[in-house]
Amino acid sequence: MSNSFPESVKIVEVGPRDGLQNEVPVSIEDKVALINDLSETGLSVIEAGSFVSPKWVPQMAGSAEIYSMINQVDGINYPALTPNMKGYEAAVAAGVKEVAIFGAASEAFSQKNINCSIEESLARFQPIMERAEQDGIRVRGYVSCVLGCPYEGEVDVTKVVEVARTLYEMGCYEISLGDTIGVGTPEKAKAMLAAVAQAVPMECLAVHFHDTFGQALANIYACLELGVSVIDSAVAGLGGCPYAKGASGNVASEDVVYMLNGLNIKHGVDLQKLAETGAKICTALGKSGNSKVATALLTK
Amino acid sequence: MSNSFPESVKIVEVGPRDGLQNEVPVSIEDKVALINDLSETGLSVIEAGSFVSPKWVPQMAGSAEIYSMINQVDGINYPALTPNMKGYEAAVAAGVKEVAIFGAASEAFSQKNINCSIEESLARFQPIMERAEQDGIRVRGYVSCVLGCPYEGEVDVTKVVEVARTLYEMGCYEISLGDTIGVGTPEKAKAMLAAVAQAVPMECLAVHFHDTFGQALANIYACLELGVSVIDSAVAGLGGCPYAKGASGNVASEDVVYMLNGLNIKHGVDLQKLAETGAKICTALGKSGNSKVATALLTK
Repeated sequence: MSNSFPESVKIVEVGPRDGLQNEVPVSIEDKVALINDLSETGLSVIEAGSFVSPKWVPQMAGSAEIYSMINQVDGINYPALTPNMKGYEAAVAAGVKEVAIFGAASEAFSQKNINCSIEESLARFQPIMERAEQDGIRVRGYVSCVLGCPYEGEVDVTKVVEVARTLYEMGCYEISLGDTIGVGTPEKAKAMLAAVAQAVPMECLAVHFHDTFGQALANIYACLELGVSVIDSAVAGLGGCPYAKGASGNVASEDVVYMLNGLNIKHGVDLQKLAETGAKICTALGKSGNSKVATALLTK
Repeated sequence: MSNSFPESVKIVEVGPRDGLQNEVPVSIEDKVALINDLSETGLSVIEAGSFVSPKWVPQMAGSAEIYSMINQVDGINYPALTPNMKGYEAAVAAGVKEVAIFGAASEAFSQKNINCSIEESLARFQPIMERAEQDGIRVRGYVSCVLGCPYEGEVDVTKVVEVARTLYEMGCYEISLGDTIGVGTPEKAKAMLAAVAQAVPMECLAVHFHDTFGQALANIYACLELGVSVIDSAVAGLGGCPYAKGASGNVASEDVVYMLNGLNIKHGVDLQKLAETGAKICTALGKSGNSKVATALLTK
């Protein structure tokens, strides 16, 4: 396979949502400060909340309030996860201009997590897609378990392709391929991405790696070799893995930025500010960060 | 650049030496237990000590005693670092059958660390090479600062090539290219390796990455794409960086093994045993390990 690195990469910062969702709850003020700080780093996409029942995900309580409190900077998108129409409506009422929906590539995962088949889960998002089109709201699609499932182990690449294609055909402008449990390795990640890119244009694909097994950055590098140009990551490597207690969360944005700098791939993010932002939210969380770059930079 | 992964990889476990050298001192019994445990994992090379004055490196005190106490398993090499003739003689007297010498690719680093030029430092090893040949002792060569220097920053690739070639021509059977301060990124690592491989056969080259900036595994993957087949790593990611307090040490052997498994590259190491060995030495050190794979495996 020949290398074709992208000239520039868009980083989708998922720390305030996918990250904090798997941490101990922090106050609304801390979340607002985190999002405002991230807005000053040069990031163009910051996933800022999830409109889901706080009964299910207490960490995401107050998303509507957060959207009303943050300084929404021109040119930055602040998407929110909306698991159903109720969440979608609440998000739009809160002024959200981009939402995200999701489907699993694993049947067992879909059943255990949302009690329905993959097909049913995608069908349930159809009304949101229609409303979003009327409302002029952009929709991003997540595919989870693209490189493995905590219940069924190996996941069939054809299933990943199928779910990604469906979300794309339903109208999602970008499909994020998530290694939810962080088990993937570079060649498998590459093979999966290459297969999906046959069905969805590469420029509409994002990679979303968790660092549970320490492979995230190697996987990202491998996917960059194929030309992927959107990377999901979380400042300070926020998050964790519900299937491996104490394990690492999302790949750290700081570590991604450092690698992109070394590869001479443009991204527009200020690494020092990003590292300081990560340190601040980690103080609020009472934990040390999971970005090795931040540790190295801030202890020098 | 086309990919040409090696069929199998030799892992050089440097935890007991390069790792422990940058940790708080542990007892001789703990070191012996570590080396004996590592001998049961399927590793074929375990760097077991350093014959250097304990005034300079207190963590390496007792290396001679350690060599007399460990169970040296047939088929496993237990090299020792020997910074000078006195160390070489002590190592051979202790029954060591393979030693390692070193040179920096950075003039400033050489001056600051051993008070002489790179050229002088290599010349000083010449008598050891001659004695080793007479004694039938194999010599491994380390090149440090191959991707950056804490004093002069960027390091010229031609300097890395020059030092590697000199060590090879002096008789070192294998040259380990060390990113001592862990600043390298994949494409730079690849370019450096490709340049050195013009002067020294690829099968005689090893890569030695520190994970200070979280890039080690991505760098290793990139170098595997070029066909490198020897990887230095330390169980539990032992070690640290004297130039960035609190920063990560060597790349964790467990994380390397996990990646190699995913790439279908043979290595012969039992991952579970390796993870348990890492957990045990971390208990002795009173710290948590730096292998994400071990954390994920052992907390499941």
